[in-house]
Amino acid sequence: MSDAAPDWIAADWGTTHLRVWAMRGREVLDRRSSEQGMGKLTPPEFGPVLEDAVAGWGAAPVVTCGMVGSRQGWAEAPYAPVPCAAQPRLVRVPDHAARPVYIACGLRQDSPPDVMRGEETQIAGFLLRNPGFEGTICLPGTHTKWVALRAGRIERFRSCMTGEIYDLLAHRSVLRHTIGEGCHDMAAFDAAVAEALADPAAAYGALFALRAGALLGAQSPETAACRLSGLLIGWELSATRDLWQGQPVALIGSPVLSPLYTRALAGCGIQAASHDAEDVTLAGLYAARQTIGADT
Amino acid sequence: MSDAAPDWIAADWGTTHLRVWAMRGREVLDRRSSEQGMGKLTPPEFGPVLEDAVAGWGAAPVVTCGMVGSRQGWAEAPYAPVPCAAQPRLVRVPDHAARPVYIACGLRQDSPPDVMRGEETQIAGFLLRNPGFEGTICLPGTHTKWVALRAGRIERFRSCMTGEIYDLLAHRSVLRHTIGEGCHDMAAFDAAVAEALADPAAAYGALFALRAGALLGAQSPETAACRLSGLLIGWELSATRDLWQGQPVALIGSPVLSPLYTRALAGCGIQAASHDAEDVTLAGLYAARQTIGADT
Repeated sequence: MSDAAPDWIAADWGTTHLRVWAMRGREVLDRRSSEQGMGKLTPPEFGPVLEDAVAGWGAAPVVTCGMVGSRQGWAEAPYAPVPCAAQPRLVRVPDHAARPVYIACGLRQDSPPDVMRGEETQIAGFLLRNPGFEGTICLPGTHTKWVALRAGRIERFRSCMTGEIYDLLAHRSVLRHTIGEGCHDMAAFDAAVAEALADPAAAYGALFALRAGALLGAQSPETAACRLSGLLIGWELSATRDLWQGQPVALIGSPVLSPLYTRALAGCGIQAASHDAEDVTLAGLYAARQTIGADT
Repeated sequence: MSDAAPDWIAADWGTTHLRVWAMRGREVLDRRSSEQGMGKLTPPEFGPVLEDAVAGWGAAPVVTCGMVGSRQGWAEAPYAPVPCAAQPRLVRVPDHAARPVYIACGLRQDSPPDVMRGEETQIAGFLLRNPGFEGTICLPGTHTKWVALRAGRIERFRSCMTGEIYDLLAHRSVLRHTIGEGCHDMAAFDAAVAEALADPAAAYGALFALRAGALLGAQSPETAACRLSGLLIGWELSATRDLWQGQPVALIGSPVLSPLYTRALAGCGIQAASHDAEDVTLAGLYAARQTIGADT
């Protein structure tokens, strides 16, 4: 760490990971990451795990987002209902003596039912970096989110389980013997996206064909992996067409998934710009920190 | 067992179970079942496991079907290509001294790629019981099969992974906290089938809503289970419409799944007759046994 002391600490505390950044204003002084996700912690462990993660960084306040604010997390940060302004809302952890800790509230949509925790902070950060953006933000991941923004407000959103379904089919279903790692056969990916977009119902019957194609010797594990990715992402694009067609689309996401979404959207005539997830997360947590009054 | 000695033994040897029947012609003298599926056995174990299962039944020949004939099974019974006559084809296990053992060959379809092992025997048995049937047979299960029959021939077929996908989503995904056991809220099932049939792509986006609906308190685990069943079966009907629309449809299958398929098809104006799986399996193995020459 540089010699300057952090004046606040940013934290992204999800189900599987805890990431912390020592911050001075918008400047990152230091960063650490561990697998102490909230999913493996019980309530009494959150405080000590956090203090351990930020040891040596002084007593600066912490601003965090993610599943740490769920009902099973450290302190529940209630969902704010959409439509709403895309601005951070914080609750303070009531019983942590070592330093102030604030958790960002997730968002809820009542009809059709949907929820997010963590992405709302990235969206706030994205708007700080791209003021005036109107259109749709896609956040690829385990549960990819598609979020419609208008005049600085989140109008509605939709989650698709594509990342999780890919993982279940590729690693725990009968397809596990058939699916290679990664997606490199881009022609197979493109063809599968087009197939699923043209006829999403028929693509359902194409899943077992990945297994049969391998058994009958006609298809490599590399091709099968790309076909599975393409079928699922094509399906998802089909399920979210009302959110991206004719819209500016921005992608915030993982280095692995974002290029696949970019490519699939390009096939539909949409040039989606890609944004760094860490950058918008820190911007969103910074915006959240600005909402804290001097007396809290 | 009755005092009569079996003159043959029928066996259904799948991935998870071994079922054996002591037979005298078409009459069942005795039956046994175990969890010694082929999936947990290595090649040297097949012979002893079979002899143990049929102990006390004499030296009658065994006729079996299912995954025991796969490449990882006891002896590979090569796939016969469709279109083909719906009649049993057997290979003999080469190295089992205790008694003759025959395994039924599965079926393959090259384009689009598909395979079956075990269901071909049920189809042969179904035709023995329902001579002259023309239309589509649906065999609900882990990988549901839809099979088009014409003039005693299997013309083509399609597998959908509905059973396996339901199991993965209900027990291993984020939905696992949300999905109850069984499907009893039939109004929710019907609505979800109709929804997926009307717009199969949108059904993809409705999966995560099962989780969010539970988090937001609007939906019981019982309703969620029925909605998940309905969405997946509706999707499958959408993917197989060319195989059932305007066709006589017969169902062969599990007591749990068949009523759901019957109900979903009835909603589409198709009155599907349901047939007992054990009965057609035994009829198919009987038909297979009739093909064995006296000298083998």
